[in-house]
Amino acid sequence: MKNSVGREIPENIIGYKEISIYNKPFDKEPVGRKAAPLLKQIKPKDNKVLKSIEEVIKKAGLKDGMTISFHHHFRNGDYIINMVIDKIAQMGIKNITIAPSSLTTIHESLLKYVKNGVITRIYTSGVRGKLAEAISNGVMENPVIIRSHGGRARAIESGEIKIDIAFLGVPRCDEYGNASGKGEKTICGSLGYAKVDAKYADTVVIITDDLVDYPNFPASIKQTEVDYVVKIDSIGDSKGIASGATRYTKNPKELLIAQYANKVIVNSGYFKEGFSFQTGSGGSSLAVTRFLKEEMKRKKVKAKFALGGITKPMVELNQEGLIEHLFDTQTFDIDSCESIIKNSNHHEIDASMYANPHNKGNFVNKLDIVILSALEIDTNFNVNVITGSDGVIRGASGGHSDTAAGSKMSIIVAPLVRGRIPTVVDRVNTIITPGETVDVLVTERGVAINPRRTDLIERLKGKGIPILTIEELKNMAADIVGTPEPIEYTDKVVAVVEYRDGSIIDIIYQIKQD
Amino acid sequence: MKNSVGREIPENIIGYKEISIYNKPFDKEPVGRKAAPLLKQIKPKDNKVLKSIEEVIKKAGLKDGMTISFHHHFRNGDYIINMVIDKIAQMGIKNITIAPSSLTTIHESLLKYVKNGVITRIYTSGVRGKLAEAISNGVMENPVIIRSHGGRARAIESGEIKIDIAFLGVPRCDEYGNASGKGEKTICGSLGYAKVDAKYADTVVIITDDLVDYPNFPASIKQTEVDYVVKIDSIGDSKGIASGATRYTKNPKELLIAQYANKVIVNSGYFKEGFSFQTGSGGSSLAVTRFLKEEMKRKKVKAKFALGGITKPMVELNQEGLIEHLFDTQTFDIDSCESIIKNSNHHEIDASMYANPHNKGNFVNKLDIVILSALEIDTNFNVNVITGSDGVIRGASGGHSDTAAGSKMSIIVAPLVRGRIPTVVDRVNTIITPGETVDVLVTERGVAINPRRTDLIERLKGKGIPILTIEELKNMAADIVGTPEPIEYTDKVVAVVEYRDGSIIDIIYQIKQD
Repeated sequence: MKNSVGREIPENIIGYKEISIYNKPFDKEPVGRKAAPLLKQIKPKDNKVLKSIEEVIKKAGLKDGMTISFHHHFRNGDYIINMVIDKIAQMGIKNITIAPSSLTTIHESLLKYVKNGVITRIYTSGVRGKLAEAISNGVMENPVIIRSHGGRARAIESGEIKIDIAFLGVPRCDEYGNASGKGEKTICGSLGYAKVDAKYADTVVIITDDLVDYPNFPASIKQTEVDYVVKIDSIGDSKGIASGATRYTKNPKELLIAQYANKVIVNSGYFKEGFSFQTGSGGSSLAVTRFLKEEMKRKKVKAKFALGGITKPMVELNQEGLIEHLFDTQTFDIDSCESIIKNSNHHEIDASMYANPHNKGNFVNKLDIVILSALEIDTNFNVNVITGSDGVIRGASGGHSDTAAGSKMSIIVAPLVRGRIPTVVDRVNTIITPGETVDVLVTERGVAINPRRTDLIERLKGKGIPILTIEELKNMAADIVGTPEPIEYTDKVVAVVEYRDGSIIDIIYQIKQD
Repeated sequence: MKNSVGREIPENIIGYKEISIYNKPFDKEPVGRKAAPLLKQIKPKDNKVLKSIEEVIKKAGLKDGMTISFHHHFRNGDYIINMVIDKIAQMGIKNITIAPSSLTTIHESLLKYVKNGVITRIYTSGVRGKLAEAISNGVMENPVIIRSHGGRARAIESGEIKIDIAFLGVPRCDEYGNASGKGEKTICGSLGYAKVDAKYADTVVIITDDLVDYPNFPASIKQTEVDYVVKIDSIGDSKGIASGATRYTKNPKELLIAQYANKVIVNSGYFKEGFSFQTGSGGSSLAVTRFLKEEMKRKKVKAKFALGGITKPMVELNQEGLIEHLFDTQTFDIDSCESIIKNSNHHEIDASMYANPHNKGNFVNKLDIVILSALEIDTNFNVNVITGSDGVIRGASGGHSDTAAGSKMSIIVAPLVRGRIPTVVDRVNTIITPGETVDVLVTERGVAINPRRTDLIERLKGKGIPILTIEELKNMAADIVGTPEPIEYTDKVVAVVEYRDGSIIDIIYQIKQD
């Protein structure tokens, strides 16, 4: 079967549920009712506080074959996932499905547990490092399922992912489970992913290194959702949140891309009083925010809200009155973590409210403009942000396809080539975001507008923007670095890439070894 | 069958589900999973705003036999329930179950719809006025089900009450359904009851008289929960919130009761740094808060939180630093409504978090002291707050049984007699709160401690509190006003009083006409 973006999808995939193939962005309607956790009675004198991870694993009744979840708000500073799985392995429990909101390099030590059968399935937004390489080389029997942030929330809310036990690390918590994003030792800001797990998991375990007096309020996760609380020495390193991200670029190529992107925004018709936007944490993306700020001041245009993935430049715009509200699923740097605690217009939202396509109205639906990155983009505007030029998994689906689908204008910012690797190609290795939801590609060598958007083509003419076709950009890239040899794969499926609605948009195969 | 508080419960009640009889406060464990609403997709360009109540009733698909819900945050100032039912009746829809969080005198105009079959079932915390009289006189075929605030939340969360459509009036809302408790025309503070309906109803309709630009944040009810938004001229009269309540008593009897109650609290062992309490909105109750304030200042004791039912005296204690947090399901006066909007330590909580016995930890479980009222209390400490001395329904179950069960010490404050009617009796007309959850009765003539609480009896000795047995108080009351003739009833069940766990604690029968 071919899906509507031209990818061949097998009729059966071992270790995967019933196949549903991608067709159109809003084609797949949800069926049935939301999932719901078990009912439970907690009596006035009941105690939720347990002494150790081991005790909580026993009390929560973790057994072979169960599904457990985690969040990645600490990104590369997370200690919880490795710590819990170490303990599970020690206790001799096997055949576990892990469903973290994402995995980063710090989690590559899980590879040994994938090899010895402690972990047999992984559902995640992304995976990196040695674990990702091993997966791409076929280490797992069951394919990893890659979901967007909205897609994960949808899968949990619909019951597609049934979480038996959620292990949620939080910077501060009281004895009854009221948990928040800033504590004595760590800070992580929004707990937007964790909030979804807390609502739907059958058993919710809070792990903290700052257990405070009752009641810890305001709370991101609340006592009515929590079964057990465990205090440990250290849940993570907040410095890991910002590693690599939110740098202030001086790279002339990135600055040029940001300038073009800014011109696209300002002339698009969407840049007007009360607009909304989301930008990422990459160099060009952050630079766009800076240029946009100047433009907003000059034209006296204020934004109603920014969405994300909140970064310091957005917090500054909010402080200066240029953005009224910040809606935050995941906080990308320490300054922003401080902001969400003390700033009443910096609102925490959960991942479902952020981007789940199957609830009664998410935030990405209300987004005017989104700036996104790409590892590759093809001449149909399909975007890859998950596999490298060698075919190896090295990224994350994130909110890419969610914001592209929801927003009125999605702009991809990317250099035309990276080293010897073209960004604009005939066919991307892996499709995360379908081209029909991508409106503009901005490179340092020119800007391509999706032909579907005749309105934008019209509005951006004669505005000092070097408009080319995407084929022209592809040819320019090919002229510089040539056309890379296609990657060779076996026919073993190592990952299924789900679109946000749960249909399959692409398959990642095992890389053929030399 | 007799339940454990000695009430004869029929084996079958026409129009009522399977019978479960009350045994012990925490005896009944929940079974199964939480209820969950239908999944739904809202696409980026979908519009939720409809033009009229009539249009929304059609769009939402209201049909004969369905269950609809409302909240009573406007208390006697609510326009929504009457307005929606008027329209439903005009449209010829019949056989509707209404499940408001409570009903007040303003809703007595629904009597005509009970008579003509538009409304055939009522689930509520309370009912008053002509509608209540007619119910007590047998106007309905199916018994009214009386639930506590926690019991209602439990019934909705467990799926026992399945709400097809919730019609929720809110002071302010945006086009996507983000709703809050203060608007241009009205204010109601916490939307604690409405939040439960919004989470579990299949279709959620927001009705507002202040439709503002997106996004209206912070929001009590959020866009992910809302199907339709309707703007009308006026949703209610905020003055109705405070009618009768929160008066500053000068009545010497009430002041004496408050003084004794204060002495009980101060000497109980629970009055210490970090304690928690709830007081009601009656004269004595408010006076207790005033006395307590002096005592807190004198002894330099601060409370961690107050729960409720929040009133101005509590807000003042919070402002003065004597109470750290206020947790608010329902706001009882305009000053408190203003406070919850602007005061970051005045937190809105939903009715489930407040008092649902079948979630993972409600607030009443964490309560040290609660002050409650009574229409009658019997020598087993069972309390009636629902039927008058004539047997007619005239009150509400409210949070009475919830807080009595959850708290470490529940204190009933009541005058020994009211006019010609004794408060302390051998047998109360109707049991709302079982005596085993009631610890102390404070009257102007003396204080009775539940014999079960030997610890309290010991601690309150020799503290200048006139301690009597409850039989002595009953005899004193009988000496003053005599023993009233028993009320005569037919064998028709007009209301079933459920305990908070869903078991039947009492039955209200039709009054025999002269």
